[in-house]
Amino acid sequence: MAGTESTQPFAMSHPGPAIILVRPQLGENIGKAVRAMYNFGLTDLRLVAPRDGWPNPDAVPAAAGADMVLENAKVFDDLKGAVADLHHVYATTARRRDMVKPVVTPRHCADLMRDYTLQDQKIGMLFGPEKAGLRNDEVALADAIVSVPLNPSFASINLAQAVILMAYEWFQAMDDTPDTYQPPVDVMPATKADLIDLYEHLEYELVEAGFLRYPQRRALMVRNLRNMLERARFTRQEVSTLRGAIKALVTGGGPKWQAERDAKRAAAQKTQKT
Amino acid sequence: MAGTESTQPFAMSHPGPAIILVRPQLGENIGKAVRAMYNFGLTDLRLVAPRDGWPNPDAVPAAAGADMVLENAKVFDDLKGAVADLHHVYATTARRRDMVKPVVTPRHCADLMRDYTLQDQKIGMLFGPEKAGLRNDEVALADAIVSVPLNPSFASINLAQAVILMAYEWFQAMDDTPDTYQPPVDVMPATKADLIDLYEHLEYELVEAGFLRYPQRRALMVRNLRNMLERARFTRQEVSTLRGAIKALVTGGGPKWQAERDAKRAAAQKTQKT
Repeated sequence: MAGTESTQPFAMSHPGPAIILVRPQLGENIGKAVRAMYNFGLTDLRLVAPRDGWPNPDAVPAAAGADMVLENAKVFDDLKGAVADLHHVYATTARRRDMVKPVVTPRHCADLMRDYTLQDQKIGMLFGPEKAGLRNDEVALADAIVSVPLNPSFASINLAQAVILMAYEWFQAMDDTPDTYQPPVDVMPATKADLIDLYEHLEYELVEAGFLRYPQRRALMVRNLRNMLERARFTRQEVSTLRGAIKALVTGGGPKWQAERDAKRAAAQKTQKT
Repeated sequence: MAGTESTQPFAMSHPGPAIILVRPQLGENIGKAVRAMYNFGLTDLRLVAPRDGWPNPDAVPAAAGADMVLENAKVFDDLKGAVADLHHVYATTARRRDMVKPVVTPRHCADLMRDYTLQDQKIGMLFGPEKAGLRNDEVALADAIVSVPLNPSFASINLAQAVILMAYEWFQAMDDTPDTYQPPVDVMPATKADLIDLYEHLEYELVEAGFLRYPQRRALMVRNLRNMLERARFTRQEVSTLRGAIKALVTGGGPKWQAERDAKRAAAQKTQKT
């Protein structure tokens, strides 16, 4: 999915959650997590005891240009330091933990985070290392467990993929893009007069061509045609294109075009024979 | 996020959308997309003119065990063949296209796909190549454009990341996991009698210790204490632990423990001095 369209400046109205990678192993995964974070406007990366130290050159290409997030990453020896300034912490985990602690969906977690953010409370999300996930003593520090509903027989999500799902849900909770919209384009939709002209043009030619020859079925057929064409919501330009197409079908393009076409076909046949 | 817990068999109640990768470049990205698909129960992978041919050995490790999806992948020369049996097609794209075609969010797209699926209609999602995305003539074949609301100044999502967002939304639309729940554990919550015994024990000791010495403030303080403790929703075992902790604080552990502790401290001091 390519295409940063422009480098228009962007700032979230509120700071997003800190993304806290606990004992991450591969620099490449850290870089991909950074790219995913910044895709959704998150910039507060915290690394707890990264296996290969920090900075890690493997993270840079994978971050695909989100250098600001990489450069601002903070490193901590232990989880205690990484969560010290936060008011709420959520632990992502796929494994079931037998703890008396609520389990929430990513979407509900994002709703909670939005509500707390609007009250100026600070939030963090914990992600465990690639192989083993978070330890139970780390999960114990969290307000709730976030668990992604997924295929229970193939539940191991890549670290950066887990980060993008949470970053995505955060952004959606803060965002007000409509479910569906028609982006403005430089063309106007056809007016009803344009459309009715088109319908009448088509119906006239269909009567002439014998397609609507039985008057007793004509009303139903006309209604069906109008219904199906109406659904397409043509622009004025498209109506004009269609009327040209109808005319071409009726006239065969006119005598001059037909003569040219016949000459071309004859020439082609001659070439094939030789 | 580690942890496939078991290999319990899994089947979606309805087939999910076909994931159609158009002219994909890197085998590793195809493999990661496959892993993401299968995380959310999708199994119908279609490849249109993959740059490096197919099968591609680079895809295998990245698929992390979702071999069934890899093996069932179908390869097509062109998009026309890949979408032939589908009733609805959605094109993912980050770049704006000046087309008269609706733009929907991933969530709304998932709702549409669920509705069509329940009517046994077949759906596909198009993803363009890593560098350039889908061509306009490819987008023209789609019912609608799916666009992820995101950071407009860093809108380039990795291919496998785009796939996981759509697969995730599909699964959520079909899934009925509650927003928040408390998984059943082998312990029972404390009864109100257990809790009131705890509160009265604590309050008695606090009166004895002079903390609740002013009767005129006592009722308010007791109410506050009970409110804050009530929020934690203790189990019976936790109430028992807390009562033991209160007792230890009051008694200092009893004369025997205090004698042992004092002896240990004296020994430690002696060692320090020598």
